[in-house]
Amino acid sequence: MNSERINSLLEQYRPGYGLPAGFYTDPDVWAADIEMLTPHWYIVGHGSQIPDPGDTKVVSLLGESVIVVRGSDGAIRAFYNVCSHRGARLCDESAEGLRQFTCPYHNWSYSLEGEIKSRRLEVVFDETFDPEAHNLRPCHLRVFAGLIFVSLSDAPTDFDAAYQPFEDVFRFYGIADTKVIRVHGFGATANWKTLVENTIDPYHVPVVHPNFTRTRTPAYWQAAAATRHAEVTAAADQAEREMDEWEAALTQLPNATGVIVQDGEHDEQFRWLVRGPLAPGYESETIGGKRVAPLMGRFTESDGASVFSNFNPLDSLFMSPDHATIFNIRPLAHDRIYWDTMWLVDSDAEEGRDYDVDEVCEFYTEVNEEDFPIWEWTYQGATSRAYRPGRLAPQESFIGEFQRWYVRRLRQQVETPATLSV
Amino acid sequence: MNSERINSLLEQYRPGYGLPAGFYTDPDVWAADIEMLTPHWYIVGHGSQIPDPGDTKVVSLLGESVIVVRGSDGAIRAFYNVCSHRGARLCDESAEGLRQFTCPYHNWSYSLEGEIKSRRLEVVFDETFDPEAHNLRPCHLRVFAGLIFVSLSDAPTDFDAAYQPFEDVFRFYGIADTKVIRVHGFGATANWKTLVENTIDPYHVPVVHPNFTRTRTPAYWQAAAATRHAEVTAAADQAEREMDEWEAALTQLPNATGVIVQDGEHDEQFRWLVRGPLAPGYESETIGGKRVAPLMGRFTESDGASVFSNFNPLDSLFMSPDHATIFNIRPLAHDRIYWDTMWLVDSDAEEGRDYDVDEVCEFYTEVNEEDFPIWEWTYQGATSRAYRPGRLAPQESFIGEFQRWYVRRLRQQVETPATLSV
Amino acid sequence: MNSERINSLLEQYRPGYGLPAGFYTDPDVWAADIEMLTPHWYIVGHGSQIPDPGDTKVVSLLGESVIVVRGSDGAIRAFYNVCSHRGARLCDESAEGLRQFTCPYHNWSYSLEGEIKSRRLEVVFDETFDPEAHNLRPCHLRVFAGLIFVSLSDAPTDFDAAYQPFEDVFRFYGIADTKVIRVHGFGATANWKTLVENTIDPYHVPVVHPNFTRTRTPAYWQAAAATRHAEVTAAADQAEREMDEWEAALTQLPNATGVIVQDGEHDEQFRWLVRGPLAPGYESETIGGKRVAPLMGRFTESDGASVFSNFNPLDSLFMSPDHATIFNIRPLAHDRIYWDTMWLVDSDAEEGRDYDVDEVCEFYTEVNEEDFPIWEWTYQGATSRAYRPGRLAPQESFIGEFQRWYVRRLRQQVETPATLSV
Repeated sequence: MNSERINSLLEQYRPGYGLPAGFYTDPDVWAADIEMLTPHWYIVGHGSQIPDPGDTKVVSLLGESVIVVRGSDGAIRAFYNVCSHRGARLCDESAEGLRQFTCPYHNWSYSLEGEIKSRRLEVVFDETFDPEAHNLRPCHLRVFAGLIFVSLSDAPTDFDAAYQPFEDVFRFYGIADTKVIRVHGFGATANWKTLVENTIDPYHVPVVHPNFTRTRTPAYWQAAAATRHAEVTAAADQAEREMDEWEAALTQLPNATGVIVQDGEHDEQFRWLVRGPLAPGYESETIGGKRVAPLMGRFTESDGASVFSNFNPLDSLFMSPDHATIFNIRPLAHDRIYWDTMWLVDSDAEEGRDYDVDEVCEFYTEVNEEDFPIWEWTYQGATSRAYRPGRLAPQESFIGEFQRWYVRRLRQQVETPATLSV
Repeated sequence: MNSERINSLLEQYRPGYGLPAGFYTDPDVWAADIEMLTPHWYIVGHGSQIPDPGDTKVVSLLGESVIVVRGSDGAIRAFYNVCSHRGARLCDESAEGLRQFTCPYHNWSYSLEGEIKSRRLEVVFDETFDPEAHNLRPCHLRVFAGLIFVSLSDAPTDFDAAYQPFEDVFRFYGIADTKVIRVHGFGATANWKTLVENTIDPYHVPVVHPNFTRTRTPAYWQAAAATRHAEVTAAADQAEREMDEWEAALTQLPNATGVIVQDGEHDEQFRWLVRGPLAPGYESETIGGKRVAPLMGRFTESDGASVFSNFNPLDSLFMSPDHATIFNIRPLAHDRIYWDTMWLVDSDAEEGRDYDVDEVCEFYTEVNEEDFPIWEWTYQGATSRAYRPGRLAPQESFIGEFQRWYVRRLRQQVETPATLSV
Repeated sequence: MNSERINSLLEQYRPGYGLPAGFYTDPDVWAADIEMLTPHWYIVGHGSQIPDPGDTKVVSLLGESVIVVRGSDGAIRAFYNVCSHRGARLCDESAEGLRQFTCPYHNWSYSLEGEIKSRRLEVVFDETFDPEAHNLRPCHLRVFAGLIFVSLSDAPTDFDAAYQPFEDVFRFYGIADTKVIRVHGFGATANWKTLVENTIDPYHVPVVHPNFTRTRTPAYWQAAAATRHAEVTAAADQAEREMDEWEAALTQLPNATGVIVQDGEHDEQFRWLVRGPLAPGYESETIGGKRVAPLMGRFTESDGASVFSNFNPLDSLFMSPDHATIFNIRPLAHDRIYWDTMWLVDSDAEEGRDYDVDEVCEFYTEVNEEDFPIWEWTYQGATSRAYRPGRLAPQESFIGEFQRWYVRRLRQQVETPATLSV
């Protein structure tokens, strides 16, 4: 890693302004980014996608192919998709009801728990063959509220400390008892930070996303800017009144409102969890506000609100009383990302009778399509010699928070370049 | 930039032989080339393409996206296509009658003169926000004979000194009063110098371009070789007689004939301007020689001649009495170029009545198609370990001139590596 | 070349285990590989493909375009496909009956023996022009058993010493008197060594290739593992008995059986030549074992056997009594190869009457399709951080031999980095 070039970029960074271009466009930064991102926990799916023993989900994460599998004991595990013999990929695609993993190259086999089935091998190997050394390499895995998290690091961040604060809200929304009804992904020419900054930016919503804008009151969008200007202050007061009114009328999950978690510069993760009211008349985060699926979890009626949450820089989960949506930024290169969206409804809901898949997915499908060109145009700008880090608007204070967090984490990464191992 | 490798190539160069392969194939040379090319002025269009205030042309030049716009005052300006806020591309495509530039990301707006419209921003920014620092970054721009030239350098070459000698000829041809009737572009796998050398090479014309060959007499093509051989000397004498005969009969623009400008090794630009007779019976540089559009400028009849001109290593303009053609080499990488062709006729000419677009464009469309494989095959040769710089033929003396000019400019570039800024 | 990184990989290698990942994935290793591969002789076709003077075959080899041509004297020669003047490609595709090579750029012409036709050039060049310096650059070429071999090195390996041991067998099979009936090629994302290791691996055949497996007895496949285990020892004994029985009944070419040539770690080439019995009832290496073309060479009946041979790490030739198949691995980048297959039958055989092309090609077309995903999956594994060189099975002892040979050759390459020239 060329630390000199990265250090020069770190010195150029001025808080309150955008990042210097090289943070988006420099392959050396990209190499450091990948190491910095590795210890985090990433969502690779939901337990409902692999309900039975031997069900697998093959996923791509930070350049690695990973097999997520439900074992004979019902527990979920993850393994690198690499045979210990000649390195061939074990599973080409997700599957159901496997009894074991069998390599397509030489039939080396492993139990669903990753142990090599060496009986057959003993015929061809002598006693110096060490079966233990040829088991599959496991990845760290945790299941939380039905969501499957994987970390590719030897020393992942502290999972329990990170997500315990999310627990009550996720339990109330019944995320553990949902099912995935659609997964949709597409690629874009952009740096992953372009997308993070877009995801946490309320300022662009009224410009780019008309239907998303309507899900909140005008005061909500304006209030994001904490400045002294009279107009904004009035909006902030108004938004606060709206929040108070909603809280006063709230009967469900009344102790978890507003900003519940919001990480900043000095936190290890980059998490947030926010619950707040939708526009009057809106029961769900949909086009027009009508519910599109049965209530989830412990809801007995809509709370007229939604939850935005984020687990790490790359993975978000947005929840309404009737459905939830997961967004995964998957960096592929300094100038290339893949964007995956998963939609969830209550596991007892029946397609056709209780919900229509297209209707549930309509809202964020539109939002994705509206953001896609923004990602590419913004990344394109960073490649220009005319690019200068612009002044962040007050509404973009959270982007500034992310950038300070990122710069601090990258500096740590450059100063103590740990060698990755499995 | 790896100056050591470039210096080694500079030492290998022998005048009179082709360039060593690395000048075409080495990415380090490519990085130096781009810096060397940057101070020049490049044609990005014709004023007729953006006739009214708010009309824009979005163009790509040396890796940058540039907006060319006619302002409210009728003047033409150019700006980098990068919003000063978050860097997003302001204009995705050329447009007509814009009132302002509005960024698709957060609605930041700029006047057609590039000034930020900060009134709306004042609501969200405090008094420390500096509007002047957030205007669009302008590019140097000049309009000459209706042609729009842009330079991306802080210190462009001297425009007036460069193009004053072209003025009389361009005025007579009425280039300012033409209109663009077609733009056609395509990409090729080749280095930009492969194309420059092809463009200024009379030696290949009789081999590759039968219809182009017929536009001049046989003596013209042979005379390009200034050697002692009897056959060539005879051709040169014959070509001179043909030139004299044409000049003697000339009634229009009689004081501008032959080689008017021809830059060499020690000049800053790499310009040329040559006017000479077509083959007997040819009124225009077309297949068969017939005129394909009304006479342009001050012509009252065809002068039976054409003009070849070049403004810099990458841009040429060829003129007949009834139409003109602009060629732009646009380098994209050491092994990738884009080739744009624009056809011009008198602005008062009416399609259908006065000209047929396909007929006007037929000649150079064919020439382009004939040259395309030559570019790729020649570049391919430079990648072979069997490639040796071959002896240049006498007919290629102008290629030798270009190569000496290029080597001299590159040496200057390597010796004084100025940092580019906007 | 970054010898430090290569040396570190060389130190990591443990005989008996797979190669460290960098040998497959590192671009520096790739650069060294190309130099190491250059002195070898590669099959570029069969004489029957260019039967008459002026017939040419244009081939790609290690990044070079090469013209293989039969001259006026009937001899076959090879030249780099690069004009000595400006470097343009002389021949875009294979052709028949050329009288000379004429460059498409400026009509420079060369005899079929590569000599420049300078008479016409003398008109334009003075006496300082040296025709000898502008002849085409020849490649080393040898014809053996009708097969055309080319080496791109100045100092190729010793051809006669290498292939003399193959002579009797190839003469008996009549390879010189065959014709090519189909050439089929396709690309894959893999390192060339992934393919070499796959080509010489008997262990995967029963897993991946059911029809190939049936061409030999079960004992044959098991016997590849030379271990002390009773089961394998029994198979080896059984395979030996089968070999003895076949040899006892053999009436044709009885003095050339079993392993005739098998290079190891300390040999210069990486050759092998093995002849052994097919399964009972099999007359040819086909699906089901029936003959698909007339007997070749001196065969009067099938010998119930087939021959596997290899000339260098990249080129193999497999022979049955009625047809032969040539396989060429063509490396394009560290992660990209092209795989060419050629099928040969007796030159007197008549399509439709004596053989059906699809039927002859069916067997190895299927084998190719079965191996293709294995190549990509195995290469993919080497890019994972979970990849560890696995223990080679006893059946993979020949892969271990190749790897020791490769590591030794690469070490020599790194220690004495000769500059390539033509």
